[in-house]
Amino acid sequence: MAGEWYREEWADAGAALSLSVAEKLADQQSEFQRIEVYRTTHFGKLLTLDGLVMLTERDHFIYHEMLAHPALFTHPKPRQVAIIGGGDCGLLTEVLKHDTVETATQIEIDPAVTEVALQYFSDFAAARQDPRAQLLFIDGAAWVTEVPDAALDVLLIDPPDPVGPAAQLFEQPFLAQCHRALGNEGILAMQSESPLFHADLIRSLHRDLRACGWSEVATLSFPQCTYPSGWWSVTLAGHHGFNEFRSLPKTVTTRYYTDDIRRGALALPRFLLES
Amino acid sequence: MAGEWYREEWADAGAALSLSVAEKLADQQSEFQRIEVYRTTHFGKLLTLDGLVMLTERDHFIYHEMLAHPALFTHPKPRQVAIIGGGDCGLLTEVLKHDTVETATQIEIDPAVTEVALQYFSDFAAARQDPRAQLLFIDGAAWVTEVPDAALDVLLIDPPDPVGPAAQLFEQPFLAQCHRALGNEGILAMQSESPLFHADLIRSLHRDLRACGWSEVATLSFPQCTYPSGWWSVTLAGHHGFNEFRSLPKTVTTRYYTDDIRRGALALPRFLLES
Repeated sequence: MAGEWYREEWADAGAALSLSVAEKLADQQSEFQRIEVYRTTHFGKLLTLDGLVMLTERDHFIYHEMLAHPALFTHPKPRQVAIIGGGDCGLLTEVLKHDTVETATQIEIDPAVTEVALQYFSDFAAARQDPRAQLLFIDGAAWVTEVPDAALDVLLIDPPDPVGPAAQLFEQPFLAQCHRALGNEGILAMQSESPLFHADLIRSLHRDLRACGWSEVATLSFPQCTYPSGWWSVTLAGHHGFNEFRSLPKTVTTRYYTDDIRRGALALPRFLLES
Repeated sequence: MAGEWYREEWADAGAALSLSVAEKLADQQSEFQRIEVYRTTHFGKLLTLDGLVMLTERDHFIYHEMLAHPALFTHPKPRQVAIIGGGDCGLLTEVLKHDTVETATQIEIDPAVTEVALQYFSDFAAARQDPRAQLLFIDGAAWVTEVPDAALDVLLIDPPDPVGPAAQLFEQPFLAQCHRALGNEGILAMQSESPLFHADLIRSLHRDLRACGWSEVATLSFPQCTYPSGWWSVTLAGHHGFNEFRSLPKTVTTRYYTDDIRRGALALPRFLLES
């Protein structure tokens, strides 16, 4: 397979990213999607769903750290944490680094994603063995409606792009259920696409989160080489603001996240602030 | 040309970026390099040199603002400013937004780059007419040796990647001449490649700049969709640190840069801090 390339065309962007691949390791059609794993020449292993990059071993740490840690370090003592999506267990791995966490529930609709990820991505295998981790393979939007009021401390939403069934995860009925499940002390974090390509989505997400009752909404951005535009974002929602947070302790090992990175990521470019 | 793509393979990275193109507008071989201009479908016009992206109309503002403004707002009153490279006049356009600037000298070796850029990129055309702008078409490394001691307030280095003749712009003999030309109050800023792909270059540049006598060296990073990895950096050198700076005044219009963006961009990821 030498000289071959995996290529993802970025929707509506007139651009595409290619990664040089050495070998295809897996290719299966689940009930929900096509799941492929490649060994690339420079980015380690690559997981794709329906032809879109979910993660590479080389750069997933940025995305997973920035979706997990800003929310978890904002909450004074996150004990009950849930992840909707994130079946590869990469985000779960970051959550389990926090020793306050008593239960980390991952609600992924497609068990095949988790099976494939745990077979090929050894960094995430320990998460499944952790007694605090609970893996559910059901619809996350339905699951959240059954969470008791204010039962969650932190809810992380790691959906694919907002097309198809995942679109509902960016809309008010679902977000209102998240607000109810988190109560006044809980923190929501969700991936919110590219500041360059999807500024309108970020703005409408802010409006929707405020309409659901959150008084504090903020977006942080970070580089993510293998996602569209190479620049990605996470949007936080809560009731107490995001300038107060617990410092990164020595017990939590990161490769991207620091207290300064967190503060810096909250600075938005002028074109996003003013439009 | 519908359905065609410009494709740049990122050197030694096993990755490539493609941009969908509608039309090729220019293609010429100068004394120094092949210069091409395309009209893309989603990124406006695209300028390439020897097949590498120099800029697109859609995202060049981030790079040009982050190379110009952090250095210029660090200096208390930048009057004498020089740019080495940057023949497209995009960086010059940002420099001329500062009303303290008395002379902005651009030293570009290849007059054909400037000719083509001013023909196709209307955003930069005003710079050439500005009476404060001086455009020289000579070798920048030779030019700096003839600058009197401490004659410059700010020196911006906008070279291509450090291969071929541009490699000398990342090395000590040239950087030592820059130090001499800037004196104790001057500020240097230079593009320093991708934090993801070129961390070793950034580290060695820090060592070289300190070896030249600068006591303060800092790297800031920012997203840059069409440069390798989608994540790029600028390294600053001076004698007084970079936490003190003049606030962005209303008279300087930016699309990316703000005071908070500047502070945030100086936060380095943990993997760069600790290695």
